[in-house]
Amino acid sequence: MKDLSESIIFPKGEPVGHDHFKGDAWLTRLSKAEGWNCSISNVTFSPGCRNNWHSHPGGQILLVTAGSGWYQEEGKEPEKLSEGSVIRIPADKRHWHGAAKDSWLVHIAISTNFDRGPANWQEPVDDDLYNSL
Amino acid sequence: MKDLSESIIFPKGEPVGHDHFKGDAWLTRLSKAEGWNCSISNVTFSPGCRNNWHSHPGGQILLVTAGSGWYQEEGKEPEKLSEGSVIRIPADKRHWHGAAKDSWLVHIAISTNFDRGPANWQEPVDDDLYNSL
Repeated sequence: MKDLSESIIFPKGEPVGHDHFKGDAWLTRLSKAEGWNCSISNVTFSPGCRNNWHSHPGGQILLVTAGSGWYQEEGKEPEKLSEGSVIRIPADKRHWHGAAKDSWLVHIAISTNFDRGPANWQEPVDDDLYNSL
Repeated sequence: MKDLSESIIFPKGEPVGHDHFKGDAWLTRLSKAEGWNCSISNVTFSPGCRNNWHSHPGGQILLVTAGSGWYQEEGKEPEKLSEGSVIRIPADKRHWHGAAKDSWLVHIAISTNFDRGPANWQEPVDDDLYNSL
């Protein structure tokens, strides 16, 4: 397994300090929203780490820079992520994302139309679903 | 010199097809603006390539993913770019960016508040200034 515990381009940052992730993840804020109406972060997921179901009132775009993982939009099959993947998450669409069981994942997260408000965090992803991937 | 003629994360895309760059550059549109109000591209500059002075009515953010180069905002000294650099360009601020003379440069460009309109392209960077860097 390629060790991406130190992100290869942007600093790894601080541990994600809330309960909406299962497993260990780190976040660096690359740009605050004020002035550009768009918040940009670099997020590093350890193997097996994923976040809860959630949605963004203004949408979000993910750019995968290293590793591999999963993205799932409600009502669709999980989609495999790898270096170079671009995911466009519509406003208010329930989804989750995270690393594969056997790989780190690093992505840039661009939260657009930030003035519509912060993410709405919801329930964890079903363990059986995640473990079956 | 590290060869970044094929970008390491996102596809290199197509040659930039207009006269606002001096030298060879390539662009891949990663996400169109519609729906997110934010246009995202991957841009690859060959060594010595830079764009003209220009400004963005809605601002822009650059995330450097490989190589090295220069960014200059009008009225300030040129600022060196390297892997991991984050540049926040305010709305309507005149600026230019490009590769170093002896290095490729790859950056992601996030054009925010896209509904305010496209870039305003202006005159080339003075050759003596660029060559002195």
